[in-house]
Amino acid sequence: MNTPDESRQKVVVDTWRSPHARLRPVPLDRVRLEDDFWAPRRAMIRDVTLPAQYRLLDETGRLDNFRKAAGWLEGRQQGFYFNDSDVYKWLEAASWILAADDDPALAELVDQTIELVGAAQQPDGYLDTFYSIDNLDARWTELERTHELYCAGHLFQAAVAHHRATGETELLEIATRFADLICDTFGPGRPRSGTGGHPEIEMALVELARDTGDERYLRQAAYFLDVRGQGYAGGDEYHQDHRPFREMDSLVGHAVRALYLCAGATDVYAETGEPELLAALERLWSNLTSRRIYVTGGVGSRHEGEAFGDDFELPNERAYTETCAAIALFMWGWRMLQINGEARYADLMETALYNAILPGISLDGLGYFYVNPLAASETHRRQPWFECACCPPNIARLIASLPGYLYGYSDDEIWVHHYAGSPVELPLKDGRIVRLRQRSRYPWDGDIALEVETEGMFTLHLRIPGWCESGARLVVNDQPYNGVITPGHYLTVQRTWQSGDRLTLNLPMPACRMESHPAAIENNGRVALARGPLIYCLEAIDHPGIDPGDIVLPFESSIKVIERPDLLGGTVVLEADALADPPDMEWLFFPQLYRTARAMGPESTLESVRLRAIPYFTWANRDPGRMRVWIRDRRGSTSPPVVP
Amino acid sequence: MNTPDESRQKVVVDTWRSPHARLRPVPLDRVRLEDDFWAPRRAMIRDVTLPAQYRLLDETGRLDNFRKAAGWLEGRQQGFYFNDSDVYKWLEAASWILAADDDPALAELVDQTIELVGAAQQPDGYLDTFYSIDNLDARWTELERTHELYCAGHLFQAAVAHHRATGETELLEIATRFADLICDTFGPGRPRSGTGGHPEIEMALVELARDTGDERYLRQAAYFLDVRGQGYAGGDEYHQDHRPFREMDSLVGHAVRALYLCAGATDVYAETGEPELLAALERLWSNLTSRRIYVTGGVGSRHEGEAFGDDFELPNERAYTETCAAIALFMWGWRMLQINGEARYADLMETALYNAILPGISLDGLGYFYVNPLAASETHRRQPWFECACCPPNIARLIASLPGYLYGYSDDEIWVHHYAGSPVELPLKDGRIVRLRQRSRYPWDGDIALEVETEGMFTLHLRIPGWCESGARLVVNDQPYNGVITPGHYLTVQRTWQSGDRLTLNLPMPACRMESHPAAIENNGRVALARGPLIYCLEAIDHPGIDPGDIVLPFESSIKVIERPDLLGGTVVLEADALADPPDMEWLFFPQLYRTARAMGPESTLESVRLRAIPYFTWANRDPGRMRVWIRDRRGSTSPPVVP
Repeated sequence: MNTPDESRQKVVVDTWRSPHARLRPVPLDRVRLEDDFWAPRRAMIRDVTLPAQYRLLDETGRLDNFRKAAGWLEGRQQGFYFNDSDVYKWLEAASWILAADDDPALAELVDQTIELVGAAQQPDGYLDTFYSIDNLDARWTELERTHELYCAGHLFQAAVAHHRATGETELLEIATRFADLICDTFGPGRPRSGTGGHPEIEMALVELARDTGDERYLRQAAYFLDVRGQGYAGGDEYHQDHRPFREMDSLVGHAVRALYLCAGATDVYAETGEPELLAALERLWSNLTSRRIYVTGGVGSRHEGEAFGDDFELPNERAYTETCAAIALFMWGWRMLQINGEARYADLMETALYNAILPGISLDGLGYFYVNPLAASETHRRQPWFECACCPPNIARLIASLPGYLYGYSDDEIWVHHYAGSPVELPLKDGRIVRLRQRSRYPWDGDIALEVETEGMFTLHLRIPGWCESGARLVVNDQPYNGVITPGHYLTVQRTWQSGDRLTLNLPMPACRMESHPAAIENNGRVALARGPLIYCLEAIDHPGIDPGDIVLPFESSIKVIERPDLLGGTVVLEADALADPPDMEWLFFPQLYRTARAMGPESTLESVRLRAIPYFTWANRDPGRMRVWIRDRRGSTSPPVVP
Repeated sequence: MNTPDESRQKVVVDTWRSPHARLRPVPLDRVRLEDDFWAPRRAMIRDVTLPAQYRLLDETGRLDNFRKAAGWLEGRQQGFYFNDSDVYKWLEAASWILAADDDPALAELVDQTIELVGAAQQPDGYLDTFYSIDNLDARWTELERTHELYCAGHLFQAAVAHHRATGETELLEIATRFADLICDTFGPGRPRSGTGGHPEIEMALVELARDTGDERYLRQAAYFLDVRGQGYAGGDEYHQDHRPFREMDSLVGHAVRALYLCAGATDVYAETGEPELLAALERLWSNLTSRRIYVTGGVGSRHEGEAFGDDFELPNERAYTETCAAIALFMWGWRMLQINGEARYADLMETALYNAILPGISLDGLGYFYVNPLAASETHRRQPWFECACCPPNIARLIASLPGYLYGYSDDEIWVHHYAGSPVELPLKDGRIVRLRQRSRYPWDGDIALEVETEGMFTLHLRIPGWCESGARLVVNDQPYNGVITPGHYLTVQRTWQSGDRLTLNLPMPACRMESHPAAIENNGRVALARGPLIYCLEAIDHPGIDPGDIVLPFESSIKVIERPDLLGGTVVLEADALADPPDMEWLFFPQLYRTARAMGPESTLESVRLRAIPYFTWANRDPGRMRVWIRDRRGSTSPPVVP
């Protein structure tokens, strides 16, 4: 079996078992993508995206800031006060690549960058170029605004990644020096109180505790969580300081901040098991998933304050749905999943991954969306970089580390969370290493084969996605599974396995129409098309002469599933007979907003058109044009015409 | 003829003819309401609202602030930094009452209040209790935030009103002393530059110039307008400082600030005739009316920043539509109307008056809406007062001064802008006084009788409202008018009149369905009911057991117009056969936001219901319940169920 290369076992297998988490993640060097969907994408991150991002970090002064802080270069700090974090996220992404791939050039670049970061560190451990270049006296004085602790968090995450990936400790030592300073600085009886305006350090400190075994970092994370809502960080929703975390009951304010905080709080819960914390997390999850999330898994309805909206406030064209917010949601979902192994968390991770994170990067790996609306004009296009560049390296680190999110294990149980062809090794408590090999064409089809290459008794959990409402079947060695298969739950198979046992899971993927809660008022009278985990959309380029918003898909019209290896790097499109129902041109020619209502013309006068839907994550990779996720499924709710 | 009492002619008839305004307003003592709609409302303002507001001004420390500034009372300033303006608006409202009504008790209260205001004035003319009580050194240092110039503007408006109403000059002298200080303080070569964060003073200074004949106040208004967009007031949209006024092309930021600024700029244009200013005003008017206004005439889509939204961003339940913003729009429309006498300005004033301003006060004159959504739950109710109490006295001054908005005149022409039973005297240039008497049951019916009580040649313009799309007829002394009657324009009758001539204008008022531009996406598949100038709504109390949002009004269903003298102080309701199409209860019982779409059940299973619509301005005057302006006119676009 082609298992990961034994010679590269540099990884420090995590020794910390979170006492209140049912599951544990699989170290990145124990699992390797070998499918046609994710493996090429991860390789693209390695070969195209990360080199390009490194050049941009250099050209935009982000690396120069470290050179200046190190005294290697003269000059003032350049760019935003949080620009260090982009370097750290790049380091984290590159480290996760190195965990599984040999890439000497990348390894060399990582080592150089770590050396640079180390050189920029102050003698007392402090490390933030925004202050250390020319304003060191002001450090710790603008916590609400300048993201000092946020940048520290990204450094710690990069350090943990690098340590786990390579077994090397240079970056980890830099991180712990800074973390020690922070622990010495903030808290009861220490020089300063409070926390920062942008949560992130909480989950980073818990991971640092897990990686080093030093519980002090956990206590510090808990401190930063506990002081929220006391006015240290502005006292408002934007900074997630409007009330104590344990009293929060809805997701409000800045979406990325809110979700990073939830992820950090879940990490703290995994270690402390405090019931009040879990209750708050479940309350927030319920609010999010039942009232404040898009069908894509995107979150954050408002441009103003990059914020969540009210319940059911889910505008499509004005959706903000920052790529980073979907990544934060994915990270939070992962942590919730570890706690109790409930498939609903993995389900939402999957939705967000394919439909809210993946759209954030172009098919060529060089363009990014910061904002991911569900309806857009031709002007919304991916960019090669942003002045506020949080999203690009965040996508890179997510995809680089994706293999680590596919499986989970506990003492004598194995979970298959996500489907992607991959061999994996999972260590059970009794010392056995369970070897599995997953093969699938997911997300294009739902046939998944699992080969067990280890003997003995253990339990296997296979996720039956919530979208697979009926027809899921499992065959074990040609023997159909006879138990009840419940969508949205894990199917559990416990037996004494023989090496060579084969499980064949079939998840039917018919095209389907989704409808939304009637309180999400913009979607009234509209459907979204979906197939398997993928949400689809209409692009103008596939409907010459017709605005996608003018297409009406009758409920009776059957939807064809068509493989298109030639299109968008290989994809599956959906096609159906539909009608074109353009708006009355008078709306365009007369600048009026209201008029006396007119009767609809007869349906027989409408032009027949062929609806062609593509996966939402592939949109804006061809000629610019209008895009729509929510499609009219009846007449009358005419869609917006193009208004210049 | 029962003309206004000649013995009370204290009014200073305005002597200033704005050179670039075609029309002139009619002094308030020259017109008196004697209809069944507005006359009782204005009397209610006088007898109920103003006494109650005075008590609240006293109880909430607003008057005490003046007593403290006058040295009559010890203590610190209380409440918001703009609380003085509430006292000034009350004074303005009371003054407009005194212009036409004898009310010795109110006159006494006004005189006492003016004495108090005068006592609070600093020796150099400065007058703002927020600073003068205990922080005088800080005056003029926080123009962006603390509304100093805004409060000054309200003082000037009150002073002009009091002078015009009574001929007395005490308040005017206080105002001009302060205005002189402001003129000495701000501008080129003077100690300070810049302007305030909340426009208002611009129109007040122009009015002060008109009332005193002192052009310096006009120049100062122009200065405050000209320095916008230079960063003096924050440099952002919220403070209307994001760009120079003449370069603005859309209405953005805080709605009241934006529209007060437009009103002030129109006043400046009326005096200067600068083409660039008019071009900007027309551009902004066009943006407002074609893309950023509700069917009610309400404006300001966002709670966040009390702001305009993007084009076509017109959410119904989350509409902000502050009562003050509609008043500001009314004031701006009035000024635009004076410039060129185009009926579209009067049309929009009318829409806003009946459907966006009047809803702001309860039928008993003691409760107010600050926010006027077009869909609401039972929790949105009028309040007796607000901590930020800008709206209550703003409604009071508007209704108190309403008679002054009904007519207009120029050298030898008369305009009837708005319909309400009233005798009026209009002075022509040749010295003649034209006496007219209007009789109507407007807005309940569109039959308007006009009796001319003056002989001679003059031109009469009668507004044919835009809502009156067909069937408008005019009869002059039993002789049908044969010319073309164009809705949304003035109908012009020029003749040599005889005393006793009668004009009978008939504006048919069928119930009608309005539809909105398809880009206003929440209204897709919905209609609003209207009759004459009134927009209607559905209230839960009229539909026992049915959520108004679940009612579907088929396009074929005819709408009955029913007089209801017993209801809501006397009203006209609309009734029609409709269907109840409640949402699938599963949405309530399972906390899900999306699901696989289901086919609609057959229409034959739907319950028939009687739709009963009431004028929107009368809503929330009975038992609390849900309210909807936009009504589904076809199935499928199910409306939001009640979600706790």
